[in-house]
Amino acid sequence: MSIPIPTVKRFPSYLRILHQERDSGRKYISATKLAEELSLKPIQVRKDIACTGIEGKPKIGFDIDELIHYIVHVLGWDNTTDALIVGAGNLGAAIARYDGFEAYGLKIVAVFDKDPRKIGSMIGPFTILPIDRINSFIAERRISIAVITVPANQAQAVCDLLVKCGIRGIWNFAPKDLKVPDNVVLQRTDLATSFAVLSVKLGRKISESDDDESIDEDFISL
Amino acid sequence: MSIPIPTVKRFPSYLRILHQERDSGRKYISATKLAEELSLKPIQVRKDIACTGIEGKPKIGFDIDELIHYIVHVLGWDNTTDALIVGAGNLGAAIARYDGFEAYGLKIVAVFDKDPRKIGSMIGPFTILPIDRINSFIAERRISIAVITVPANQAQAVCDLLVKCGIRGIWNFAPKDLKVPDNVVLQRTDLATSFAVLSVKLGRKISESDDDESIDEDFISL
Repeated sequence: MSIPIPTVKRFPSYLRILHQERDSGRKYISATKLAEELSLKPIQVRKDIACTGIEGKPKIGFDIDELIHYIVHVLGWDNTTDALIVGAGNLGAAIARYDGFEAYGLKIVAVFDKDPRKIGSMIGPFTILPIDRINSFIAERRISIAVITVPANQAQAVCDLLVKCGIRGIWNFAPKDLKVPDNVVLQRTDLATSFAVLSVKLGRKISESDDDESIDEDFISL
Repeated sequence: MSIPIPTVKRFPSYLRILHQERDSGRKYISATKLAEELSLKPIQVRKDIACTGIEGKPKIGFDIDELIHYIVHVLGWDNTTDALIVGAGNLGAAIARYDGFEAYGLKIVAVFDKDPRKIGSMIGPFTILPIDRINSFIAERRISIAVITVPANQAQAVCDLLVKCGIRGIWNFAPKDLKVPDNVVLQRTDLATSFAVLSVKLGRKISESDDDESIDEDFISL
């Protein structure tokens, strides 16, 4: 069964609440409680849970362990996936050192860069490796996911190289719209786009409160 | 005129192409060219540009300078906005040092933390300041935007404090669903959610190519 991507996007938030409730000693949770904690509509939560096929008990709710088990499995977070980082700049270094990924089954195993001055120096537990060794590394370690944190003007070349080396999933943090073949999955985390949305919404909120104008809610909440 | 948020989200990508084309000495660009560069449908690009009110010249295209000027203005990136960071961990440090924000008019002016061992030490150009000075700092410097990079279990408390101090725009990097009053804008950049989507899509692509099963494209491309 194919879970809709918008539901997949809510799953990590559900997991946080489920872990939190389980840590407080609870065994069951209602859709209403989940909805309340996440400021979602209860009908939305019920639809999302319906996708899991897990049935609740009337007046008691859903088995927390069962939900956690299912969601973790659907997300593939019960298996650890090895990934590498290309680009040992500030953002690459932060991601390499970030200790929150293993909870989702993502394990950074290497950091590559092309700058000879960086090769051999350490970022957290990783020695920065030269980019010309990436092909054999990917083949030997059977890596399928790569994180791109190089500058925008190098991102497409790095992406092409990764695809050529057999990488199937690319997580792009570079402010650049990359092109990949159909058999490769591209996920973008673009700080510029996030900040664009924040700026525009903030500007509208401020003019709304200054002028007391009514604004088009459809546009704000999209 | 209210620009739809999905259009706002595409504006930073348009800007990158526009700057690139201008740097190559071009003065005009067609919607088709923009669409091609960004793998969008030409009709989508035409609709987005229609929102700007800028008219193209037949067979020549749109004036690049005019488009840049308009988009930068709508995004508010022609004015610099001061922002502060709360949370001097790996991610907070990376964001503090990241030099790509000023192009969007976001200027980090201070980094706060509550850990006494961190106070006074440096992150890039910033001395880490104690959280109990944040109220007066926000008031004196008239800060309206804050970036949250604290651990999940501290994020709501920090958020509440920021709102109380008068912050109107919050950019949350903590893996936590925050609640804010209606007059505050919340933007979330959640690495867990991004990775969840990447994992699930990648799993589907791999099973698709292994089994040669047809899959529901609607679910994949959402």
